[in-house]
Amino acid sequence: MSKRVVIALGGNALGNTPQEQVAAVKETSKAIVDLIEEGYEVVISHGNGPQVGMINQAMAEYDRALHGDPNLTPLSVCVAMSQAYIGNDLQNAMREELLNRGIKKSVSTIITQVRVDKDDPAFLNPSKPIGSFMTKEEAARLEEKGFKVVEDSGRGYRRVVASPMPKEIIEIDTVKTLLEAGEVVITCGGGGIPVVKEGNSLNGVGAVIDKDFASSLLAKEIDADLLIILTAVEKVAINFNTPNVKWLDKLTTSEAIEYIEQGHFAKGSMLPKVQAAINFASSGEGRGALITLLEKAKDGIKGKTGTIIRD
Amino acid sequence: MSKRVVIALGGNALGNTPQEQVAAVKETSKAIVDLIEEGYEVVISHGNGPQVGMINQAMAEYDRALHGDPNLTPLSVCVAMSQAYIGNDLQNAMREELLNRGIKKSVSTIITQVRVDKDDPAFLNPSKPIGSFMTKEEAARLEEKGFKVVEDSGRGYRRVVASPMPKEIIEIDTVKTLLEAGEVVITCGGGGIPVVKEGNSLNGVGAVIDKDFASSLLAKEIDADLLIILTAVEKVAINFNTPNVKWLDKLTTSEAIEYIEQGHFAKGSMLPKVQAAINFASSGEGRGALITLLEKAKDGIKGKTGTIIRD
Repeated sequence: MSKRVVIALGGNALGNTPQEQVAAVKETSKAIVDLIEEGYEVVISHGNGPQVGMINQAMAEYDRALHGDPNLTPLSVCVAMSQAYIGNDLQNAMREELLNRGIKKSVSTIITQVRVDKDDPAFLNPSKPIGSFMTKEEAARLEEKGFKVVEDSGRGYRRVVASPMPKEIIEIDTVKTLLEAGEVVITCGGGGIPVVKEGNSLNGVGAVIDKDFASSLLAKEIDADLLIILTAVEKVAINFNTPNVKWLDKLTTSEAIEYIEQGHFAKGSMLPKVQAAINFASSGEGRGALITLLEKAKDGIKGKTGTIIRD
Repeated sequence: MSKRVVIALGGNALGNTPQEQVAAVKETSKAIVDLIEEGYEVVISHGNGPQVGMINQAMAEYDRALHGDPNLTPLSVCVAMSQAYIGNDLQNAMREELLNRGIKKSVSTIITQVRVDKDDPAFLNPSKPIGSFMTKEEAARLEEKGFKVVEDSGRGYRRVVASPMPKEIIEIDTVKTLLEAGEVVITCGGGGIPVVKEGNSLNGVGAVIDKDFASSLLAKEIDADLLIILTAVEKVAINFNTPNVKWLDKLTTSEAIEYIEQGHFAKGSMLPKVQAAINFASSGEGRGALITLLEKAKDGIKGKTGTIIRD
């Protein structure tokens, strides 16, 4: 049986316009098809920070102009739209790259809802950055409108919303069915459309689920062997941004927890990635997580680079 | 073996805001689950006229403000977003209605691309209305910006784009796999994301595919028994809007073709529905198409009302 892999792509690597995205997913697809060629079964999830920010802003301005209410289109609806916006380009680029290499495999995007707990403490403390980076002046103007804005890891200012923990992937049976049929599935885009359960009803909530945590849950649900979290650095480091920086090849989940406690990983950046990696790696025998660059995924899966978290 | 049905929903019946849509799909789902309770296997497609118009307008204003170019986000990308916007609410309402009746069945939305021919003559003559209705003055302003606008069946003015014929549903294998697994599938939303093939590559085009023609192709591809086209009238009529109006219960494909030639059906309204019905009904033994109201679907499928086109 071939090894099953969940690949979590960063939303920031997908470009800031439709044209940039079409170009970006071509490169992404090459790296992913490399893994398929090596015999891996692949499920793809992705972030949507800049994209859901764009859609949210567009809908807010439209709703303000037409209905006098900038909050008419819920953020959860914008997340749904971002799944199609990104998924469509990604499935298309994947399809083309597979055909270019003579591999016959269907690729599909599943609109995916992820249940969160309405009592999740995250709702009291919005912390997930969405949308494009802003100057200090732009941030101040947004704050005046009642939105929460924070400074993000030295890269500028961004709007933040609640980031509750994912509890259940509503469309998981669909993902499993397609995976069993040998398809490449794109799911849990942007961490999934956040919903809370009330009786038989699911209702969207104004939040964004961390895509790495959603990917960890996804990897557990489909009994994956490896969770690959792709990011902007080749390896995880301690003492990052200091002269004592140390790049890590391998760490156990308890070592990773220790480094977290020592405050080595930036909140909203490397921290959730390491936490999601621990979450999956500690969930069952033989499960591991790899954190690396997109273009190093093929080497990383062979143990040549990246940071592997495994007990 | 249970009978397989494709249900094509009208985009105009889905409401004009996210809140109206949530309410509308509850009613839609009741009517569809009625059919599932009767033992039918159901695939759902839907229109997206008002919705893709809304998204297109929102993105155009956003792109104009941010990048100085109102046409940065292709219409095909807006169609993709509309599939998620509608599909997410629809799959949610379907899930709830199924649970309310104790039926265990997964429902999923597949982002669906539909191939068109780049030499399709439709590209020379844009004719498909999209977006909300406009006053004569609003229409004039839009025309000044270079868009094509027409008067639509006495209901107001709308922007029109090309409506090429659907040739191939790219994600058809995914739909078949899920259908075989007993799922309810939402696909070909808005007629599908229009793409043209160039080598191994699929490229989005500025067009909207008629959802009834796409539904007819879908029904053929999955070997459905019945195509149900839901619309704003209970039955098809000849001499519509005259004192001699005659409502039709049943007609053969050749009778339907004769009525078309006599000019009985309004272009952009009943005409494509009758054409799509003929297209499917004439494609194989035992295939038929039903045109009726959403709330009459259950009676219509039993032959009690609606217009059935079958040889």
